[in-house]
Amino acid sequence: MGVVVDGCPAGLPLETSDVQRELDRRRVGQSKVTSPRQEADRVRILSGIFQGLTMGTPISMLVTNEDADSSKYEPIRDVFRPGHADYGYFAKYGVRDYRGGGRSSARETVGRVAAGAIARKLLLSRGIKIVGHTQMIGGIEAGAFVESEIENNLVRCADPEAARQMVDLILKAREEKDSLGGIVEVRVSGLPAGLGEPVFDKLDADIAKGLMSIGAIKGVEFGDGFQAARMRGSEHNDQYRVEEGVVIPITNHGGGVTGGISNGAELVVRAAVKPTSSIEREQQTVDEESRQRTIEIKGRHDPCICPRIVPVAESMVALVLADHLLRNRASRLRAKG
Amino acid sequence: MGVVVDGCPAGLPLETSDVQRELDRRRVGQSKVTSPRQEADRVRILSGIFQGLTMGTPISMLVTNEDADSSKYEPIRDVFRPGHADYGYFAKYGVRDYRGGGRSSARETVGRVAAGAIARKLLLSRGIKIVGHTQMIGGIEAGAFVESEIENNLVRCADPEAARQMVDLILKAREEKDSLGGIVEVRVSGLPAGLGEPVFDKLDADIAKGLMSIGAIKGVEFGDGFQAARMRGSEHNDQYRVEEGVVIPITNHGGGVTGGISNGAELVVRAAVKPTSSIEREQQTVDEESRQRTIEIKGRHDPCICPRIVPVAESMVALVLADHLLRNRASRLRAKG
Amino acid sequence: MGVVVDGCPAGLPLETSDVQRELDRRRVGQSKVTSPRQEADRVRILSGIFQGLTMGTPISMLVTNEDADSSKYEPIRDVFRPGHADYGYFAKYGVRDYRGGGRSSARETVGRVAAGAIARKLLLSRGIKIVGHTQMIGGIEAGAFVESEIENNLVRCADPEAARQMVDLILKAREEKDSLGGIVEVRVSGLPAGLGEPVFDKLDADIAKGLMSIGAIKGVEFGDGFQAARMRGSEHNDQYRVEEGVVIPITNHGGGVTGGISNGAELVVRAAVKPTSSIEREQQTVDEESRQRTIEIKGRHDPCICPRIVPVAESMVALVLADHLLRNRASRLRAKG
Amino acid sequence: MGVVVDGCPAGLPLETSDVQRELDRRRVGQSKVTSPRQEADRVRILSGIFQGLTMGTPISMLVTNEDADSSKYEPIRDVFRPGHADYGYFAKYGVRDYRGGGRSSARETVGRVAAGAIARKLLLSRGIKIVGHTQMIGGIEAGAFVESEIENNLVRCADPEAARQMVDLILKAREEKDSLGGIVEVRVSGLPAGLGEPVFDKLDADIAKGLMSIGAIKGVEFGDGFQAARMRGSEHNDQYRVEEGVVIPITNHGGGVTGGISNGAELVVRAAVKPTSSIEREQQTVDEESRQRTIEIKGRHDPCICPRIVPVAESMVALVLADHLLRNRASRLRAKG
Repeated sequence: MGVVVDGCPAGLPLETSDVQRELDRRRVGQSKVTSPRQEADRVRILSGIFQGLTMGTPISMLVTNEDADSSKYEPIRDVFRPGHADYGYFAKYGVRDYRGGGRSSARETVGRVAAGAIARKLLLSRGIKIVGHTQMIGGIEAGAFVESEIENNLVRCADPEAARQMVDLILKAREEKDSLGGIVEVRVSGLPAGLGEPVFDKLDADIAKGLMSIGAIKGVEFGDGFQAARMRGSEHNDQYRVEEGVVIPITNHGGGVTGGISNGAELVVRAAVKPTSSIEREQQTVDEESRQRTIEIKGRHDPCICPRIVPVAESMVALVLADHLLRNRASRLRAKG
Repeated sequence: MGVVVDGCPAGLPLETSDVQRELDRRRVGQSKVTSPRQEADRVRILSGIFQGLTMGTPISMLVTNEDADSSKYEPIRDVFRPGHADYGYFAKYGVRDYRGGGRSSARETVGRVAAGAIARKLLLSRGIKIVGHTQMIGGIEAGAFVESEIENNLVRCADPEAARQMVDLILKAREEKDSLGGIVEVRVSGLPAGLGEPVFDKLDADIAKGLMSIGAIKGVEFGDGFQAARMRGSEHNDQYRVEEGVVIPITNHGGGVTGGISNGAELVVRAAVKPTSSIEREQQTVDEESRQRTIEIKGRHDPCICPRIVPVAESMVALVLADHLLRNRASRLRAKG
Repeated sequence: MGVVVDGCPAGLPLETSDVQRELDRRRVGQSKVTSPRQEADRVRILSGIFQGLTMGTPISMLVTNEDADSSKYEPIRDVFRPGHADYGYFAKYGVRDYRGGGRSSARETVGRVAAGAIARKLLLSRGIKIVGHTQMIGGIEAGAFVESEIENNLVRCADPEAARQMVDLILKAREEKDSLGGIVEVRVSGLPAGLGEPVFDKLDADIAKGLMSIGAIKGVEFGDGFQAARMRGSEHNDQYRVEEGVVIPITNHGGGVTGGISNGAELVVRAAVKPTSSIEREQQTVDEESRQRTIEIKGRHDPCICPRIVPVAESMVALVLADHLLRNRASRLRAKG
Repeated sequence: MGVVVDGCPAGLPLETSDVQRELDRRRVGQSKVTSPRQEADRVRILSGIFQGLTMGTPISMLVTNEDADSSKYEPIRDVFRPGHADYGYFAKYGVRDYRGGGRSSARETVGRVAAGAIARKLLLSRGIKIVGHTQMIGGIEAGAFVESEIENNLVRCADPEAARQMVDLILKAREEKDSLGGIVEVRVSGLPAGLGEPVFDKLDADIAKGLMSIGAIKGVEFGDGFQAARMRGSEHNDQYRVEEGVVIPITNHGGGVTGGISNGAELVVRAAVKPTSSIEREQQTVDEESRQRTIEIKGRHDPCICPRIVPVAESMVALVLADHLLRNRASRLRAKG
């Protein structure tokens, strides 16, 4: 698994441990609520760093993993798993790699997290901090938001009491050979106003694309999001006040983005995570010869993917923000027409 | 207002009226629930068409409009309108064009609709049909879905009874100098399985970006979307059956996209539209000198933008689908690293 | 003819006359050695400028022209002109617009010059000056380089004596119903060291692409160029000296670019311009039905295109430099892999 | 060294040996006229291939090399080598990796050759064949063109007698602690007419960019190239004839590209290769503290890089052609404006 990060400015302090720490957060096998697979992802930085500083040139990294057992995929080699991209890939390419290591595998998110770690470091050097957490699992919503609690529980929930209920629910779903969905939220503080490009490359549009490109995500919303559709303008508009010479939105219904440009408020984005598609229950499906089949997917799968989506979602937000932050000061001059 | 459409294959029959028809659907001043401005957008195709057929070369179009009255913007020339991008633009560029004709204006959606008209024609020539409609306004949801009713009412709702209630609610909001949000849904039938690129340029990711780049949209979801976050895998997974040799998803909780690739089912995507930001009520805001001010936005503004978002959202979906459809058969060979 | 310039920073003073002046330099009908067609290209800036300053948003321009007489193309409507892209376009698209106004027409360079005018203004505001001139026509080479003479003669040659000989040669070629090629050189002073991206988007690579995308250009070289292929390392290497604390290349065999990155010396690039393809002599060719035909191309064609290529080549260099200059300070952060 | 090839269609037979063979051609240490360094580049294909066929998904490869001795760079760690990008990089980034393994190193061409091998295999499956050769070194030009001789001599020259003289000249230059430049030519047969995009992404423009992005190349020309600048239209125009129903250019002065689109003739492109910059002679230069210094570059450097540029140039041409070939059948639909 290789990943190349292009465009990081020169002079940013960066060590392998900065990347490894985030990969460890993504890793499976961390707890009883995630899959017992033990993938020890180890990252090596191959280029772009010299004497502890980025050089301005592309940074290439290699992530290796020792736990690759593809024998378990034998039983499903010619069958399309419901909820997975198997059938779409087969329709698209006419061939597919049934071993689960392909492009549609969740393994590719390793590269996103490795790249995201660099983006986060860059953002942090400019006072921009990204925090993700699990806001809901299986109907149980976090009430409180205690940031320091997030990494203290198995589901990355900022409300310890809700976290306990979420864990119980996940264990119960596993017993029932079923899985759960949830909502992951990412908050960004310290973001300056003025990020985002007019028309197509709006800040929220790029973040939405980044998040929706994570396989399990089925919806994205900013601020009040779908709830805004039920509000009136007089409720939803974020009015402004001045405080010590600084313009501040009084409320934050818009989630920090207005008309595609950041407005200086905290950026708040939520993503709907579908329940894990791989379940041990019998399901109806078909095979590559268009014959009706049934399938029970054995193996080590997380009954709820939310805790592991948190660092991936943070990474996608970080990559988009870093791109806009750098682009903002020097957009490219291009003639079209 | 100019727009260039690049990449349309040669030989597609295309006339000015194909584009004009869609522009007319977007136009304001159509009814009592939209703004009384009379913008008569007229399109001219300047290049790329010869003897009624596309030539394969870029198609450039010019859309002109006679109703430009910028005097009304005088009172707000140095004040940031809540809910608009005014403040973000000022923070970004240090200058802004207060006349409302800038890049953040809803006027730029004219270009999207003109380009989308060509994409729709291309898709239709391959049996792919796009239908948008207003699914909710101010809490009133469409129950029925009668496609032929959509263009028969002022709000583009497929349920005539709900449409009547929506119109009443909008008129009431206008009287109260307020505005309403809603939900617009786009459905695509005839889409083949296998559209979408692995990893970043997934089909749903690109559609999400396209829709979120429309100024008023605050959320996007596919299939069951945020509702999927409350479901179990055994409920949400779309199992497959074979019917006369064709693989068909039995249910459509995923909205036609699995793992970022189309699966042959109807594509269903919904967008949350915020209430119109320009309202006549007094609001708190600040000006370019960071002084506290109040603002009441006079002028001709739609109290609910949903009916006019429908053709814009259809257009964005059409553009993304056409791009993927053409790209699918011949992805580009690129070396990176 | 529309053109959109994206990415110009806010705050640059820009007037219509800045663009018009460059368009006038490109125009035909200027003299006895160019075609007597009278295309009065008039530019209008439609957006992106407010109160005489760029706004940071895209700048769109419309260039109109009154002298469009396509009747003259009737005789050649189904025949492929030697030296033109007619046959390639027909092979590619299966249709073509024989009226000469298509994408392969030299008319499209109007857009390049309009966009280039903005890029030049931006570069000039940072002390970077671009000067193009005709270095050779039909074997007659400029000896002297007197910059102030360039716009004083009909061929844009910096050597007045050579200019006279070039004009005579062109008039003679016209009498003989033939045409001439030549070499155009562009010099850039004031360019800082460090422009250009590693690996693929090198400064010289992007300039080569820009120049080679002008229809009549068949070769591009930097510094000593093809002559460098006959030199030894000890001759060709540009050694450095320090002068008042500034690093300066002692010679400039490399033309200001080393390893794809600018080195602070004057940038020098030359382009080989082929003789005008449209000549009145009888030539062998075929038609759309693959029948052998002969063709004599009547009409008003420049016997040597070099003088008019000068502003187009300057524009392409300006656009690439402006792009790199803006990009340099803030390259984009991107993950691939 | 990692490289990712994106966009290769599914179903192409591809084995590691297809890539390894081309890497071996690029390798140093092959003969007495190249550097005695023994870099054994070994490629591994990590993804994108399944059961001997490409899958349509990105192909990632890893090229490893055991011969990395960076101690020799110690003496030049703070000095800018004339003819290299050292100074430009330092001006751009403020730091540089003096160890020679950076982005400006010739080592990065390994990735180009690995990717090019896949492109060549794809082109060959469609009857398109790419042959490169050394056309000139140090003033000695190849007279004959005997394709089968190219790989039979140390300089990849298609004229065995000229090859012998070239080798002698190189050995002499090495003794004199100097280096030589030359010209490399790439010919492509079997190319269909109609490749290349209008306006900016012309076929010759993209090839010129690809070749000019190779560090040592200072000029690119198609067909008669700079010689065309001295010709008349009646000489340079390639007239057409019909042979058994096929349109064929009678001559090939244009090198197979007219107006940026391929015309069915053999594609012929030449690149000027500068003499190797690293020479053992004393040269004037400066260091990172702007102090005057002298430098003698010890180490194992090819006195003439032409033989090794041949496979790199072939690869760049192959990558551009494959991209255009795939793109041609399905250009992307894009709205701009």
